[in-house]
Amino acid sequence: MSDAHAARRERLREYCSASGADAALVTRAANIRYLTGCPPCGAALLVTRERTLLALPDDLPPDDTGEHLIAEDVTQLPVAGELDAALALAEAAGRLRVQDLAVEEHDLTVARHRSIAALAEGVRLADLDHAVERLRVVKDEHEIADLRIAAEIADQALGELLESILVGRTERHLAMELERRMIDHGADKAAFPVSVGTGSHSGLEHHQPTDRRVEEGDFLTVVLGAQYRGYGVSTARTFVIGAAPAPWQVELHRLVFRAQRAGREALSPGVEQHVPDDAARSILQAAGHTEHSVHPLGHGIGLEIREAPRLGPADMGKLDSRVPVTVGPGVHLPGRGGVRIEDTLVVRPLEEGGPELLTITTKELLAL
Amino acid sequence: MSDAHAARRERLREYCSASGADAALVTRAANIRYLTGCPPCGAALLVTRERTLLALPDDLPPDDTGEHLIAEDVTQLPVAGELDAALALAEAAGRLRVQDLAVEEHDLTVARHRSIAALAEGVRLADLDHAVERLRVVKDEHEIADLRIAAEIADQALGELLESILVGRTERHLAMELERRMIDHGADKAAFPVSVGTGSHSGLEHHQPTDRRVEEGDFLTVVLGAQYRGYGVSTARTFVIGAAPAPWQVELHRLVFRAQRAGREALSPGVEQHVPDDAARSILQAAGHTEHSVHPLGHGIGLEIREAPRLGPADMGKLDSRVPVTVGPGVHLPGRGGVRIEDTLVVRPLEEGGPELLTITTKELLAL
Repeated sequence: MSDAHAARRERLREYCSASGADAALVTRAANIRYLTGCPPCGAALLVTRERTLLALPDDLPPDDTGEHLIAEDVTQLPVAGELDAALALAEAAGRLRVQDLAVEEHDLTVARHRSIAALAEGVRLADLDHAVERLRVVKDEHEIADLRIAAEIADQALGELLESILVGRTERHLAMELERRMIDHGADKAAFPVSVGTGSHSGLEHHQPTDRRVEEGDFLTVVLGAQYRGYGVSTARTFVIGAAPAPWQVELHRLVFRAQRAGREALSPGVEQHVPDDAARSILQAAGHTEHSVHPLGHGIGLEIREAPRLGPADMGKLDSRVPVTVGPGVHLPGRGGVRIEDTLVVRPLEEGGPELLTITTKELLAL
Repeated sequence: MSDAHAARRERLREYCSASGADAALVTRAANIRYLTGCPPCGAALLVTRERTLLALPDDLPPDDTGEHLIAEDVTQLPVAGELDAALALAEAAGRLRVQDLAVEEHDLTVARHRSIAALAEGVRLADLDHAVERLRVVKDEHEIADLRIAAEIADQALGELLESILVGRTERHLAMELERRMIDHGADKAAFPVSVGTGSHSGLEHHQPTDRRVEEGDFLTVVLGAQYRGYGVSTARTFVIGAAPAPWQVELHRLVFRAQRAGREALSPGVEQHVPDDAARSILQAAGHTEHSVHPLGHGIGLEIREAPRLGPADMGKLDSRVPVTVGPGVHLPGRGGVRIEDTLVVRPLEEGGPELLTITTKELLAL
């Protein structure tokens, strides 16, 4: 992979040249990982025209530095554990006679930015302006392969849960079990805290699991994702507990299923980002569910669980091929519960078979 | 508790008046919780001379807002889920004719600070300069009661683990089991990811659990903490696996135990922050362990797992009564392993019995 990382740093250098900066100071963990393979760890990265300096806390255990992943043309600078790696690189930028240094103003706090300005002698600071995030939007096939494995892990964990007895167990326990199963199947970790909502908690996007127990007749919504080699996916399914779902449950599930399918089918290179959202939203609105309106249908996903592009009603950019995104509409009826169905897919042209579905667990309304 | 929160906001108002600001915009989650009781949730808080405005994302499930905790004199301002609560309050500050607004420059990114400046019409921005963090250093007895419960939970989980079979189990599984047990005993969650290190991984402070299995003869270091009502503790213990520890293990454990005891015994109101560190460090250095030198012995703990005051060799401030701190020296011998022993204690004067130990699990070298 070190060739891929070196190529990414070259693209960053091209961006800097074009924007008048002679170096970039990268502090956002996902961006450092993207450019070096080094996992998040209080590191900071300085990319000048000629050199790459990676400042790493000196107290990391060997397993955590990802040292085997770091290419030979990257100079490592150990920094005492209590100090700020970005400040060490600010000083280095001064010594290396950098004149215009682009920094990540969306990541640095005002206080840290001020310290960098004070330490980087003779250096003018500019804004890197999400340049690395933009490089990260379109994934290469290595990255997509990691996302595919992350999705398989999440699907396996979910599949095993569906085979077990659920009635009487708490949301918290089910969430912890899913996390454990993902790690057993080889995940680095859960990509985000697993959400399990039962009964009136079902259908929510960010529900924090409680001690409520699963009961006969409940909707059960599970939102989970695995992280593999830094790459995460997200998926949500809603099931019903007991022999026979109520008519309102069947109807609501069918509605959200149709909206989610419409969103998925609208994914295509060249399509504006709001189009999948429009497709799903119009179906929910036609059925009278308008409270959903503030939430975008989905978003890009990769080294961060929520990254560019956003798929919201006002997002006007165009989708590219090889961009992984989530598509996850939901409806929640306060006091009763609801349905959420989410997949992670990769945008692909029709010649390649259209959108590639990564999270393949069935979306039928299973009665468990 | 709403009286306590109101009193805290009054102290913040006094600080603002004294520093020439007529309002404070608080964005750091732990600070918002301290001032309102509202748990972390993308909220932001504006405290003017006359009013308190709490901006909350409108898509929080009712359980997560802590609404029952929020006092009546706090005006709630719902903000659409995708928007930034701090920006909504910046606009409000302009409407309320705030002239000098103190913001948390150690929390806001440069980009967010710029957006606030653009939206807060006619408002001059200043730095709140960790004012709320300073208010948080000395705890009241309600806060200490919550810390005591958090410590009991961590002790219970650790005690149960010690009664189970450990040989053959992986660090990851033991860490997950400890997390689950803490939640079972009533923790909000683990205060930080549990660290379990066995064999050559033992004795490290920030070891991320791996698939290494516990073997006969290993040192086993566990670093864990529970969070209860927002308040966290931290504790570490090192045990040996099998019937009889090797002489080097007995010796190293005794050394770290002595250093940790010296650190604990040096805690007293009025003592300079570096004194407990000096006491522990001199014992480790006399035995030839100097590599430890960059790490402070401990730090304050409460709504954040690492907060003021720091107990490092260069920290010159004085300790106060009712300040909870960690005391946790360690020695790691690369390739062999090591020992870490950490407690959470509350600084108390001798008349009140001296430092109050919250994490009471035995510090003897148990052979498991």
